[in-house]
This record gives sequence, structure tokens and C-alpha cells, in this order.
Amino acid sequence: MQSISNYTSFFNDYLSQNNYLKNEPQSLHKPIEYLLSLGGKRIRPALVLLSADLYNVPLQKALDAALAVEVFHNFSLMHDDIMDEAPLRRQRPTVHTKWDVNTAILSGDAMLIWAYQCFESYDKDMFYNLVSLFSKTSKEVCMGQQYDMDFESREQVKINEYIEMIRLKTAVLVACAFQMGGILANTSIKNQKKLYKFGENLGIAFQIQDDLLDVYGDPKTFGKQVGGDIIENKKTFLYLKALELASENDKNQLNYLFSIQPKNTSAKIETVKQLYDAYDIKTISSKRIEHYTDLALAAVEELELNTEKKAVLYQFAKELMYREI
Amino acid sequence: MQSISNYTSFFNDYLSQNNYLKNEPQSLHKPIEYLLSLGGKRIRPALVLLSADLYNVPLQKALDAALAVEVFHNFSLMHDDIMDEAPLRRQRPTVHTKWDVNTAILSGDAMLIWAYQCFESYDKDMFYNLVSLFSKTSKEVCMGQQYDMDFESREQVKINEYIEMIRLKTAVLVACAFQMGGILANTSIKNQKKLYKFGENLGIAFQIQDDLLDVYGDPKTFGKQVGGDIIENKKTFLYLKALELASENDKNQLNYLFSIQPKNTSAKIETVKQLYDAYDIKTISSKRIEHYTDLALAAVEELELNTEKKAVLYQFAKELMYREI
Repeated sequence: MQSISNYTSFFNDYLSQNNYLKNEPQSLHKPIEYLLSLGGKRIRPALVLLSADLYNVPLQKALDAALAVEVFHNFSLMHDDIMDEAPLRRQRPTVHTKWDVNTAILSGDAMLIWAYQCFESYDKDMFYNLVSLFSKTSKEVCMGQQYDMDFESREQVKINEYIEMIRLKTAVLVACAFQMGGILANTSIKNQKKLYKFGENLGIAFQIQDDLLDVYGDPKTFGKQVGGDIIENKKTFLYLKALELASENDKNQLNYLFSIQPKNTSAKIETVKQLYDAYDIKTISSKRIEHYTDLALAAVEELELNTEKKAVLYQFAKELMYREI
Repeated sequence: MQSISNYTSFFNDYLSQNNYLKNEPQSLHKPIEYLLSLGGKRIRPALVLLSADLYNVPLQKALDAALAVEVFHNFSLMHDDIMDEAPLRRQRPTVHTKWDVNTAILSGDAMLIWAYQCFESYDKDMFYNLVSLFSKTSKEVCMGQQYDMDFESREQVKINEYIEMIRLKTAVLVACAFQMGGILANTSIKNQKKLYKFGENLGIAFQIQDDLLDVYGDPKTFGKQVGGDIIENKKTFLYLKALELASENDKNQLNYLFSIQPKNTSAKIETVKQLYDAYDIKTISSKRIEHYTDLALAAVEELELNTEKKAVLYQFAKELMYREI
């Protein structure tokens, strides 16, 4: 087994050798090359490699599945950035800003198709299994994005609905990455399901952790602006949980705070934080993160896998849970 | 063998029984259902059925491949309509007009994934062959759309470039529909290639015919407004051919006419038509249509198929060539 950063650099080497984007028309392929060149943590493809490595699949064999997952992830970023009217992605102009919306739509479409084509290097049996899982996952990511957009204009969103949304939008792709390793290894369906469950619960925990760090993260280590979600009036786990618990008065105040965009953002962040603190939202969120991490760990427990390999998964899950970035 | 309209209604029955679009979230699925409900000629799925029927594949078996092709076609319409800022599709509001651009992007993405999922009912061997062809084709359709957009802002477009654009944007999907019949029948790669060639050349002939009918079609039988392409300054085969042949003077006039949007459209149409007539563009276009139809027929000639079945393909090609709508 190797470290995540080793898997990442192994994947990045492979990506940089890819000639797919050299094809004509360049007006279609350049925007894809640009978005991929912005980097990102490459966590999803690394997880495909890690998962394959658990079952001693040669890493080489897992590269195309890893590529498919990363290309799909970037496809979804390209289209989501249009929908969210995001000007920047990784501190650089988004594709629809640097080019235009039409380019971002069409290059995104081409990326989704490219992702499917990545699987063509596998034999027909494996192709079927990988592509079916990939389609199911991709469809769910679209559903998650749709729920996310629907929630923006909805007055009430229940915690369970929010969890389901982040499960679809974020967690299933992590789950898919882990299961793909199992498919590549031809391991049992039972093991595949456990790998999926591990990734799925970890993905949910990761997203709630993201919501938590946004408010309570250490500005020194947290990569993004602390309080960013509050400034943008984003309905996070913390916000929805606070609404659920708050008195009528506090609920009204929270609703109001999440409807305004004041110049003085630090005052708004501070007030929201005080409300969160009044209902112990930090502890509740941490417990929920622990809950999903526990579910992930329980899935590992049930995996047919030697102790040493299981330890790698435990370690990975714990690092995610205690991360500060 | 049956008539095209029989294949179409067999397909429409299947489509109407489909439950895929009943799933949540309805905000994602309703726009898809709406676009599909607007109808259209369903020519592509009918061709999958026809092609399968040539080799005695039970029609039932061809339905999911036909569905994939039709769903993909409608996906491309949904996204193209955004890019073209088209307010209407089949006399009804386009999805991005009836809902919004974000909805049309995301529902379109979901459609593309759905198209892939349609193939999951086939065995793994067939799945691989169908999906690979489908990905290659889908990618080419995106490339065609990109060239089409690129050409809009380009000063000079050569006839060969135009043919390549319509081959990608229109013809390869027809070719794919025909080859899928061959894949479903497990016929030889050689036969599959001939079926593809038949569809490809027919598709190109069809598109040039479309360009021709726009100018010289009978207003009584032609479904759309005669001269529509001229009004919209669309670079068609006729326009590009005329530019190629015209004197410096006439070239300037044509360029000018295709840069303005006068209120009096009939005067513009009439002037363009006179210029086309001066260079015999109608005859030249008809000959080019005949050329591609001949290539299509030559492919049929080389098919391993009994005479009666070949006659069906000849008949179909000729009807397309002499169509007036």
C-alpha cells in the first residue's frame, strides 16, 4: 500500500501523458484541458487506485477507471459552475467566464462522453460492471445537484433531505471510486457493497465536516475563507440543524440573517456563530460526523480483507474525520 | 419488413410505457418528459428497428437501442437549443424557455446518462459493442456542433469543411442507428461497416436536401418556412457553393446579404435566389445529393443481404432523395 499522495502523483503522471485533448476541434478540447490543468486534490482517482491496491490489482490497470472518475468530477464542476454562476474555480476563471456558457455546456458534454470512453480499455465483463455503476452514480450526482438547486428556493429543508442531497451530490462518487477498485479486483459482490458503503458514509461525513470547518475551522489551516457559507447564505447541516432546534425567535433571526448580504460580513458571521453555539451545533455536527465515520468503519469491519489492509482504511477514515482543512 | 411509420408507432408505444421519468426529483425529469412529448418524426429509432429487422432480429430486442438513440438525439436538441438561443422547438417553448437554462443543462445531462443506461438490458458482449459505437458517435455529434458554432464566426468555410460538419452533426447518428441493427444481429464487422456507410452517406444527402428544400421547396408541402435559412443568415451548402463560384462582385453582394436582417425578408430571399440561380446552385446541389445517395446505394450493393431486403434500403434511400418535406 502507498500513501494517498503517491496515488495522486501516479495518477497525475498518467493524466499528463494523455493525448485525448490534442484532437480537433481545439475549441472543444482546450477548455477541458484548462479545467483539468487547474489541479485539485485528485482525491477521487487516488481512491480508485487505493481501493484497487487493497486487492493487489496492478495500479496500471486501475488508471483508466480513475481517469473516468476524475473526468466525470470535472465535467460536473464545469456544468455546476455555470448553474452557480461561479466566476472562479481554484482561484482561476471558470470555463464559462474564460470562454462562454455555450463552450462550457458543450465541452462539459464532451467530457461526460470521454469519461465513458475511458472504460473501453477493460474487457467486456468488467466494462459492463464499471459502466453500469458509473451511470448509476452519474445519474445520482445529477439528482443531487437538482436537489441542491431546488433547496435554494425552498422554505423548509429537513435534515434527512439535506443528508440525502449530499449523499447524492458528493458521497456516491466517493463510494463509486471505492467499489470500482473492488470491480477491478473481481472481488465478491458482498465485498463490493461494503467498499461502496465505506465510501458512501465517508463521503457524507466528509461533507458535514466541510460544513463544520467552514464555521469552526482554524483560519490558519483552513484553505477557504472561514464563514464563507454564512456569507453566501448556504443551507448547510449546521444551519438546518440550528433551525430545527431554535426557538421561534431565534429561528426568525436565523432566517433573516440567511436572507441578507451585508457589507460587514464579520458581524453577520459572529451573530450566526452565537446562535449556533446557543444550540450546541458544533457538538451535534461532530457527533453526526462520528456517526457516519462509524458506519464507514463498520463496513470495513465486514470486508474480507487482511488486517493490515483494513488498517489502511481505518487510518484514512480517521484522518478525514480529524482533518482541519 | 414493415413501413417506417410502423416502426415509429411500435417505438412510440414502447416510449409511452417507459417509467423512467416518473422518478424523483420531478424537477429533473419533467423537462425531459416534456421535450420527448413534443414528438418529432422518431426517424432515428425507427431506423434502428428497420436495420435490426433486415437481419430478422425480433423488434422487441432492438427497442432499448432505439430508445438510447432517440434519448440522445433529444439530449442534443435540449443543449443545442440553449446554445442557439432557440425560443421554440416543434412550435412549443424550448426547455430553457419554459423552465430556465440551468434546468435545460442539468436535465440534458441526465438524458445523456439515461441514454447510456438504456443499453444495460443487453448482454455484456453486445453492451460493449453498442456503448463503444454510441460513445464514438456522441462525441462526434458534439464535435459537429462545435464546428457549426465555430463556422458562424468564421469568414471562410470550405465546402469540404461544411460536409465534414454535417457528417458529424447529423449523419453519424443515422449511421450509428443502422450499425446498431447490425450489432444486434451479430452480423459481420464488414456488414456493420456497410450499414454504417449507408447511413452516413444518406445522412449527408439528407442534410444537403434540407438545405436545398429550404430555398427551392414547395411552400405547400415543405413543413418549414421557405427561405428560413436565408432569413437567419445560415451558412448552408447552397450559400457556400455560391460563394465559391461567384464573381468578386456577386460574392460581396452575397456576403452583404448574409450579414443583414431586413424587415422585408421576401426581397432578400428573392435576391439571394437570383444569385443562386445565376450559378446553377440548384442543379449543383441536386447532383451532390445524388452523389451521396449513390455512395449509400453502393454500400447496400456490397451488403450480405437478400435481394428483397436490399430493395427496402434502395426504396428508403430514393424516397429520401425525392422527398419534398
